[in-house]
Amino acid sequence: MGSLEAERKTTGWAASDPSGVLSPHTYTLRNTGPEDVFIKVICCGICHTDIHQIKNDLGMSKYPMVPGYNYTYFSLRFFLLGYSRLYENQHIHIRDWHEVVGEVVEVGSSVTKFTAGEYVGVGAIVGCCKDCRPCKADVEQYCNKKIWSYNDVYTDGKPTQGGFAGSMVVDQKFVVKIPEGMAAEQVAPLLCAGVTVYSPLNHFGLKQSGLRGGILGLGGVGHMGVKIAKAMGHHVTVISSSDKKKEEALEHIGADEYLVSSDATQMQEAADSLDYIIDTVPVFHPLEPYLSLLKLDGKLILLGVINTPMQFITPMVMLGRKTITGSFIGSIKETEEMLEFCEEKGVTSMIEVVKMDYINTAFERLEKNDVRYRFVVDVAGSKLDQ
Amino acid sequence: MGSLEAERKTTGWAASDPSGVLSPHTYTLRNTGPEDVFIKVICCGICHTDIHQIKNDLGMSKYPMVPGYNYTYFSLRFFLLGYSRLYENQHIHIRDWHEVVGEVVEVGSSVTKFTAGEYVGVGAIVGCCKDCRPCKADVEQYCNKKIWSYNDVYTDGKPTQGGFAGSMVVDQKFVVKIPEGMAAEQVAPLLCAGVTVYSPLNHFGLKQSGLRGGILGLGGVGHMGVKIAKAMGHHVTVISSSDKKKEEALEHIGADEYLVSSDATQMQEAADSLDYIIDTVPVFHPLEPYLSLLKLDGKLILLGVINTPMQFITPMVMLGRKTITGSFIGSIKETEEMLEFCEEKGVTSMIEVVKMDYINTAFERLEKNDVRYRFVVDVAGSKLDQ
Repeated sequence: MGSLEAERKTTGWAASDPSGVLSPHTYTLRNTGPEDVFIKVICCGICHTDIHQIKNDLGMSKYPMVPGYNYTYFSLRFFLLGYSRLYENQHIHIRDWHEVVGEVVEVGSSVTKFTAGEYVGVGAIVGCCKDCRPCKADVEQYCNKKIWSYNDVYTDGKPTQGGFAGSMVVDQKFVVKIPEGMAAEQVAPLLCAGVTVYSPLNHFGLKQSGLRGGILGLGGVGHMGVKIAKAMGHHVTVISSSDKKKEEALEHIGADEYLVSSDATQMQEAADSLDYIIDTVPVFHPLEPYLSLLKLDGKLILLGVINTPMQFITPMVMLGRKTITGSFIGSIKETEEMLEFCEEKGVTSMIEVVKMDYINTAFERLEKNDVRYRFVVDVAGSKLDQ
Repeated sequence: MGSLEAERKTTGWAASDPSGVLSPHTYTLRNTGPEDVFIKVICCGICHTDIHQIKNDLGMSKYPMVPGYNYTYFSLRFFLLGYSRLYENQHIHIRDWHEVVGEVVEVGSSVTKFTAGEYVGVGAIVGCCKDCRPCKADVEQYCNKKIWSYNDVYTDGKPTQGGFAGSMVVDQKFVVKIPEGMAAEQVAPLLCAGVTVYSPLNHFGLKQSGLRGGILGLGGVGHMGVKIAKAMGHHVTVISSSDKKKEEALEHIGADEYLVSSDATQMQEAADSLDYIIDTVPVFHPLEPYLSLLKLDGKLILLGVINTPMQFITPMVMLGRKTITGSFIGSIKETEEMLEFCEEKGVTSMIEVVKMDYINTAFERLEKNDVRYRFVVDVAGSKLDQ
């Protein structure tokens, strides 16, 4: 297992070129500093961002790359080309939350938050400036100098690599506690989809029971949206373009209502009825039909990066003082709060656990949306470091 | 002056057809009921909405029509045609705040808020359902059954007529007190432009001193935006497409900074610097450059109805958890609060006072934006009812 003094090697599954095919790759982890935690990876979720990163869809990929991400933040570089002037000082990279769950093996001399043997989680971010307004407000996910968990460069000049690997070294600030009794593979999707939904509900004052919420799109994030909103005591309507997922939404995930957005009568009957909509759809869609579903002061919260400008006419927000906003994963603090909330309320995710050597097939299926609702790789059971 | 029992006649200046030319027109006011206030009009502001109403740009004008409105809510019917299915139960009419200042002549038997001789204001709304969620929350401007001050039908079946007339009869609920010592012609623009800016700053928690605000567009609403935000203790930046209004903004209206939106260097230097932007521009403009000026959790508040869909890419709101929202005039309660605030802080508007027989010329000049910043008609001095 190495020591705090020595460099350690680990084996991950890496993409070595834009074909996106992953194969085993052994690399050196950085020395464990006084603030670092050395973690043996137990499991890690798979997400769309991984696909886009390994295939270099953003044009920023560096190989070999060990992914281990989540969520659908693709094509952003394309979007931002037109706005690069305004962004070049902001170091905006769009990737998302890792879903790494691991066991602490060793901690640095200044680490007080963790001890060996504990179960912990690691998300999309492993560094931030600790000095800007977002960092000081404990919302380091909005720091312009954050360091991503993979395909980025750490403060030591070495590349960061993700959670499809035997082990990782992570600054304790970016490691989250996992409440006792939660199963590792259940926790993985919470670290991404869970906090991505929990954070805006928490921040925008939408946690209290009795609210009426809409979940637009029933994928990995959407299914966690239904479960978390239900656990908050909300009346939850799933909004979808067809009735294909109706039975699933109502009988298996626990939604209260199902609204087909292409059905004008249903949409009209539901006008002015929702306090918020969590919009997880990652492709262009008109916003007006959903804005019309909101009550006075209702909020449309966008969670998907979309490679076409969204459109709305101004009276749709002015009349009813409605809000269009967005949110980006969640902070370490919110992630820990969310895990406690899910443990207390018994919120679970719907997953399909696979071994590491299934990863390329899993990516293929994920591209076809053929998963209910999240793949989780059993990394420890795949014995990468043996 | 008539009595509470008798019908009274008044003379206003009315448009009789879509040419939009106004000429004197005498009509009958409704009987003054127990909740009503009979008001002699002292002065009334002129706004773009008046132009569009009298010229039937919305296709909903009924003649003869006595205007007396404000602000730029044109072409809305055109926008909403495509969304009419969702709206047909909502009775949405887009018009705006009157700027009527008058003297109470007589009050109904149940009127407790006013007595004869007091100065009062009347806005865009003279009726609401008093039963819906917005009405119960004292934001009756968002009631779907509100009755507009002109070009609408009152509960008695008669047309409502505006403030370019000798007198009006108005339900006491829709009459606002004017603090002592405020000049009538100064108050008129506050009843529209003032409350249109004050209401969102108040509602969205942006009243405290020390904030950094942007005012986009320096017209009638924009100039009140600068003055009210300065009175709240904000650092105010006027954002404009050219430097034409720079001296005016900084030296006459009191802004702290002036930012030319077409200057990429200036815009980049100002990135991530504002807590909010009040966007008063009534024509299409890209939102991204302005979203980039906002800090974490910053708010872009749209006040202009725009006949082209607005566009933005989702990362512009997700990264920084920014908000695009809008606001529509303000409530009676907020209008009274705003007047007290302006009286206390000495906030004044920049106006050009004209007589009633100048109204057609004033409309022509207004169409060319040839006014600093608001025309106010001296109705009492024009002796319409003699």
